[in-house]
Amino acid sequence: MTFQAALKKTADEIEALLDDLLSLDGARAPRVTEAMRYSALAQGKRLRPFFVAESARILGADHHQALRVGAALECIHCYSLVHDDLPAMDDDDLRRGKPTCHIAFDEATAILAGDGLLTVAFEIITDPATHSDGVVRAELALELARASGHNGMVGGQMLDLAAEEKHSHDLDEIIAIQSLKTGALFRYSLEGGAILAQAGAEDRERMRTYADRVGLAFQIADDILDVESSPEQLGKATQKDAEAGKATFIDLFGLDGAKARASALADEAVGALSSYDSKADSLREAARFIVERKN
Amino acid sequence: MTFQAALKKTADEIEALLDDLLSLDGARAPRVTEAMRYSALAQGKRLRPFFVAESARILGADHHQALRVGAALECIHCYSLVHDDLPAMDDDDLRRGKPTCHIAFDEATAILAGDGLLTVAFEIITDPATHSDGVVRAELALELARASGHNGMVGGQMLDLAAEEKHSHDLDEIIAIQSLKTGALFRYSLEGGAILAQAGAEDRERMRTYADRVGLAFQIADDILDVESSPEQLGKATQKDAEAGKATFIDLFGLDGAKARASALADEAVGALSSYDSKADSLREAARFIVERKN
Repeated sequence: MTFQAALKKTADEIEALLDDLLSLDGARAPRVTEAMRYSALAQGKRLRPFFVAESARILGADHHQALRVGAALECIHCYSLVHDDLPAMDDDDLRRGKPTCHIAFDEATAILAGDGLLTVAFEIITDPATHSDGVVRAELALELARASGHNGMVGGQMLDLAAEEKHSHDLDEIIAIQSLKTGALFRYSLEGGAILAQAGAEDRERMRTYADRVGLAFQIADDILDVESSPEQLGKATQKDAEAGKATFIDLFGLDGAKARASALADEAVGALSSYDSKADSLREAARFIVERKN
Repeated sequence: MTFQAALKKTADEIEALLDDLLSLDGARAPRVTEAMRYSALAQGKRLRPFFVAESARILGADHHQALRVGAALECIHCYSLVHDDLPAMDDDDLRRGKPTCHIAFDEATAILAGDGLLTVAFEIITDPATHSDGVVRAELALELARASGHNGMVGGQMLDLAAEEKHSHDLDEIIAIQSLKTGALFRYSLEGGAILAQAGAEDRERMRTYADRVGLAFQIADDILDVESSPEQLGKATQKDAEAGKATFIDLFGLDGAKARASALADEAVGALSSYDSKADSLREAARFIVERKN
């Protein structure tokens, strides 16, 4: 299967699974469930679940279990977008071409929908359906909490807000922020499959290295898209970073330099997979896709 | 040990444990960790952790493990207060006699601190230090997610906001909201010890019944305090419910009727513990305390 076909297949499976997991049947407070569905069933690329599914496949774990881990991860990703878009945070009205959650509903509902998505991620991942071994379920949840919490994604978001205020242009600092804000979940997405497969330290290290390179390349590509695309192409406001006085990789490397850096990182990501045969081709293609994508 | 002494002992232990679990040593984004500490180390009564510790003791589980479950639960409780206090929600400036998190820090930091507290609860509870058996850790996390998520506490908060808007005065509806908004975590606090002890269905059912009665009594007592106390006594604004047009148990039962109802619920809670000997006395006293407390 080509990378694009595999990505599409995972996205469709995740959409169906989230539709089921966030069911309105028996919902105790339908409004918050509707807001969660609005934000999670928004047809993203589902890159993170794709990475879980691929690392699971390469390392020999069950596909349906991988989809559940991917669905949990996507709930974390989507909650972070809902909260980041709030007026007190990035104050965005548009996300994936649709009104953001607090515009479509209201601020209180968006706060609660984010809280609900964050919480349901742990409900999904610790359910016996995710893995028959409780030790594996607990480890999946523990690492997800570490990746997404105050010393992971939440911490990265905090640092990002602070960097905006002080107009920081320090490369190491910007990379450190990225490593937490988007890198931690990328790392988890590749390690998730390894945990499900109960893979050894070497396989985990390879997946982590791939994830780190791809995560940074993804962020650089995001900065490139922010200056080269229109709001229509991206489905969200562009050039907000520059307006907010936030330093981007373009400021540091220039546009051509940023493209070269992203491409080099994709090469390094592919290099980390050298001990796997053609079964890892879709991950190799994914690294290329990430630096060449148009939205 | 008397109930008051046991409550104080648990509160001190929880304070020390949270101080350690939310350490600033090695914090990647100190500001958000500081805001989490500000909100979690605020010297509450720690009733929920007390219930975990007591149910664990009565059913024969380890005390230190119970404290970790209690600490996780307290993180969930504290995050819910931080988010509920936000301007878009209840818009409160004062909590436990101190400025609320978004006043002491800012709104963005308060949103992130709440997210961080919610997430770290699952980090604490799935850590191998909480229980040697992964199945138990995963079950503790799964039930915590169910109790606190969109079909539990978060759902209750959503319904509460909606009830405020439509000025509902329907008893069944108000009880249903309370059962989710505060009842679900009370239930979890008593079941947490039972899960740790891997207790049978009968013990769990007793603990659940006690929790349901005590949870409802607690909410009625809250409504009584709201009309009978000063802001100085409570450390937060009073009579906000009436101003917000929110129906309270006082509206439904009258003040004397509400007191009688709370007292009857405490009796029922005590009745659920009849098969335990004097080792359950502190829980019996706790039921009385909850309806007679002054803050």
